[in-house]
Amino acid sequence: MQTKDIDLLIKNGTVLTINSDMKVISHGWIAVNNQQIVAMGDDSITHTNYLPAQTIDASGKIVMPGFINSHTHIPMAYFKGLADDLPLHTWLNEHIWPKESKMINDEFIYHSSLHGIAELIKNGIVMFNDNYFRGKQIAKAATEAGVRAVIGEGILDFPVAGYENSAMIFDYFISLRDQYKQSKLIDISLSPHSIYTCEKETLQKTIHLAKEYDILLHTHLAETKKEYDDCMDLHKKSPVAYLNDLGFFSDKSILAHCVWLNDEDIDILSEKKVHISVNTKSNLKLASGFIPFQKCFLKGINMTLGTDGVASNNNLSIIEEMGITARVHKALNSDPTALPASEVVKFVTINAAKALGKDNLIGSLEIGKQADIIVIDTDNIESLPAYNPYSQIVYSLSSNTVSDVVINGKTIMYNRQLLTLDEEEIKDRAYYYHKKMIED
Amino acid sequence: MQTKDIDLLIKNGTVLTINSDMKVISHGWIAVNNQQIVAMGDDSITHTNYLPAQTIDASGKIVMPGFINSHTHIPMAYFKGLADDLPLHTWLNEHIWPKESKMINDEFIYHSSLHGIAELIKNGIVMFNDNYFRGKQIAKAATEAGVRAVIGEGILDFPVAGYENSAMIFDYFISLRDQYKQSKLIDISLSPHSIYTCEKETLQKTIHLAKEYDILLHTHLAETKKEYDDCMDLHKKSPVAYLNDLGFFSDKSILAHCVWLNDEDIDILSEKKVHISVNTKSNLKLASGFIPFQKCFLKGINMTLGTDGVASNNNLSIIEEMGITARVHKALNSDPTALPASEVVKFVTINAAKALGKDNLIGSLEIGKQADIIVIDTDNIESLPAYNPYSQIVYSLSSNTVSDVVINGKTIMYNRQLLTLDEEEIKDRAYYYHKKMIED
Repeated sequence: MQTKDIDLLIKNGTVLTINSDMKVISHGWIAVNNQQIVAMGDDSITHTNYLPAQTIDASGKIVMPGFINSHTHIPMAYFKGLADDLPLHTWLNEHIWPKESKMINDEFIYHSSLHGIAELIKNGIVMFNDNYFRGKQIAKAATEAGVRAVIGEGILDFPVAGYENSAMIFDYFISLRDQYKQSKLIDISLSPHSIYTCEKETLQKTIHLAKEYDILLHTHLAETKKEYDDCMDLHKKSPVAYLNDLGFFSDKSILAHCVWLNDEDIDILSEKKVHISVNTKSNLKLASGFIPFQKCFLKGINMTLGTDGVASNNNLSIIEEMGITARVHKALNSDPTALPASEVVKFVTINAAKALGKDNLIGSLEIGKQADIIVIDTDNIESLPAYNPYSQIVYSLSSNTVSDVVINGKTIMYNRQLLTLDEEEIKDRAYYYHKKMIED
Repeated sequence: MQTKDIDLLIKNGTVLTINSDMKVISHGWIAVNNQQIVAMGDDSITHTNYLPAQTIDASGKIVMPGFINSHTHIPMAYFKGLADDLPLHTWLNEHIWPKESKMINDEFIYHSSLHGIAELIKNGIVMFNDNYFRGKQIAKAATEAGVRAVIGEGILDFPVAGYENSAMIFDYFISLRDQYKQSKLIDISLSPHSIYTCEKETLQKTIHLAKEYDILLHTHLAETKKEYDDCMDLHKKSPVAYLNDLGFFSDKSILAHCVWLNDEDIDILSEKKVHISVNTKSNLKLASGFIPFQKCFLKGINMTLGTDGVASNNNLSIIEEMGITARVHKALNSDPTALPASEVVKFVTINAAKALGKDNLIGSLEIGKQADIIVIDTDNIESLPAYNPYSQIVYSLSSNTVSDVVINGKTIMYNRQLLTLDEEEIKDRAYYYHKKMIED
C-alpha cells in the first residue's frame, strides 16, 4: 500500500459533513493536505496509508465545518458589558457613541479586534462578516490570527473614527481593497451603516462602487420599529422597498437584523436572493423585536446567524445564537417542529458560506473543499448522553466545548489553546483597556 | 491579634452578596466555619487572623451565593436529547412516556440522578426543587453528592414508576418524609403532576397531607394552551382558579411554567403569595408559549427560574436560563430596561431560597447564613473585559465558567473537579445507559 505524507489527520470523531445529504459519519476520519480535504471516510476504509504531520484524536467528539458568524462588529470587543439594560437611544447616544468617539483609533481597533478574534476562535468561528471602520487594522488582526473574514468598511454620513465624511471612507476602502485583493482569507466589502445614517446619494455611490468591484454589500436594515416608521414617514415606503428602489439588492447583499419586515418586503428579499443575518440575542436584549423568521425561511430566503457586536449581545457564541433562535421561533409559531436542529446548524455553516460567496470553498466537509474544521468535545457530564449530534449542538452544548479549530488546513486552536495568538497578552491588554475605558 | 482556626477562606474575589442592599465587595473575602459564614469583608479589614484548613483564591473571579434551580426532574438526565423538535403530544406519548415505562426502576433513577446532580454542580447549582418519582433514590444521590434538594414525590392518577395508584404514592411519601425529617440538606415535598393527570379528590388529599406535614406543594400549572382551554371546558374556570378553589395556594406552594395566565389569575397568585418557577427554555422549545413575566413581577409575585428536565431543556444551565429569560421578556415588552441583570440574579438566589422556605439560611452571602457559595472564573478571553458583574453573569458567561462550589460549608467542586462524585464512573454509566436506551 502506497503511503502519502499529509498535513493533518482528524480521526475517531462523529463527522457531520453538512453536505447536500447531511451525511453523518460515525467513527469518521478526515485527511487534510495543502489546505484541502483530500480524503475522508469511516472505519470501513483504512487511513493508515496517510502519514500525517499532525493528528487530532476526536474520540467522543463531534467533527464539523467551522461556524461562520454572518454579522458582527469585532473591534467592539472592549465594549462588552459596558452599558446594559438601557433604551437603545440612551445606550447609543450616552454610552456607545461617546466612548467610541473618545477611544477609537487605529491602535484600539487593532487590539480590540485581536481580542474579539480570539473570542471567535474559542467559539469555533472560522469566518466572520464584519461591519466597522478602519478595516486595515481589523484585517491585520485577522491575518495574524489566521481566520477568514469579510471586512466591511462602514459608511456613514457624519464624522466617525477619524473620517470627516464618506468620501474619505471611499478612498480608504479602495486602498484597503487593493491591499487584500490577492488574499486567500480576507475579502473586503462595503458596509453602509444604515438607511438613517447614510444619505441617498451616499447609498447610490456605495452600490455603484460595490458593482464596480464585484463585492458584497452589507448593511443593517429594519432593526427597529422607529427605523421602519421613520422610513415610511420620510420616503413613503418600507426600508426594504427604499433600498430595493435604489438597486441595493442582489445575491451579493447581506442584511443584518430585518426585524421589521412586511409580507411584500419578504417577497422582494426572496426574489432578489438577498441573504439575511439574524441577530436574535442582540435584537431581544435591545428589545428591537422578533424577525418573522419562519415566513422568510418558507419563502426560500437564505437564512444565516450573526452575533452582532459584544456591546449588544454580550458575547460571540454562535452556539448560543442557534439555541435561542430555534427556541424563540418555535414558541412564536406555536410549533415545536419549526427550526429543527439539523436545519439550524446549516444557518451557521453552509448557508452562511453561501451568503459570503464561499460555499464552493467552505461551509461543509467534502473532498476538495478548503479545510475549515472544528472539533467539539462531548465527552463530559454536561454533554452526555448524546443521542443526536444536531440536538446536542443546538440545545445542550456550551460554546466552550469547542476544543480544536482548523482554518484553511492550519490548526489555529488545539485542545482550547490558541496557537496563533498570545492569550495572556490579550488578557493583559483587556485589563489595561478596561481601566482606560472607565477612567476616560 | 488572636488567631482562629476555620474551615475555609475564600479571598480576592468580587463578592456579590445579594443582601437587601445588593452590596458588592471588590477584593472581598469570606471566612467559613462549621457550615456557616462567620466573617466577611474587603481589603481594608484583615483576614490574617483566620487560619483556614482550605483556601480558595478567587482572584479575577466572582464570588456569589450558589444558584437554586426551582423546578427540575433530575432523574431524567439520561433522557437528554432523546427526542427533539416534536409536538408536545408526540414527544410525551411516543417517546418520553414509553421509554420511561420501559426504563424506570430504582437503579435507573439513582444512576440518572447522580448524573443530573453532577451536571447541576458543574452549573453552580447548590439546591434543586425536584418533581419526579421514587424520591428515596433521588434523595440518596443528592445526599452522596452533598447538595441541597427539595424532593417532590410526584402524584399521578395512573400507573407510573411501579406505583399502581396514588394511594401507594402517598404511603411511599410518608416513609420518605420520615426518613429525611432530620436532614439538613434534604426536604420532602408533595408534587402532584398536574390538574389533568390528578383527579380532584387526589388533589384534595394532597393538599390535606401537605398541610398536615407543613411542607411545600409543587406542581406544573398552565403550561400549555390546551391545558388552559381543557380546564375552562371541564371546570368552567382557569387552571389557577380551579386550584385556588381547592385551597392549593399559600406561600408554601410553587408553580412551574404558568405560561397561560389571565389577569385575574395573576391577582390570585399575588394575593396568595404563591411562588412561580419560570422555565423559559423548556416552554420555548416545546412551543408552549411565553409567561406574562413582567405582569407577574410587577404584581409582586416571587419569581424564580427552573431548568425543567433535560428531556425538554436540554441542559441544566441556570446561567442560560437567566440570559434567555431576560432577553425574551425585554423584547416581548418592547422595553430593554425590563428584567435588568441585577434583578435576574435574584431570581436564582434569594428569590428561589424564599420559594423553597430557605431564605433565612441561604440565597445570599451574609454572616450567620449557611455557606452555599460559588466562584465563577471571569479571567478568560470570553469574559473580559468585565465592567459589571451582573451583566457578565446574565449576558456573557457560559455555565462552565463556574470553578468552585461550596455547599453547607463543604467544598463540592474545586477548580471544576467534582470532589464528592466520581466523574469518570458517571460518564461510563452514561455511555452504558445510552446504549441500553437506544437498544430497548
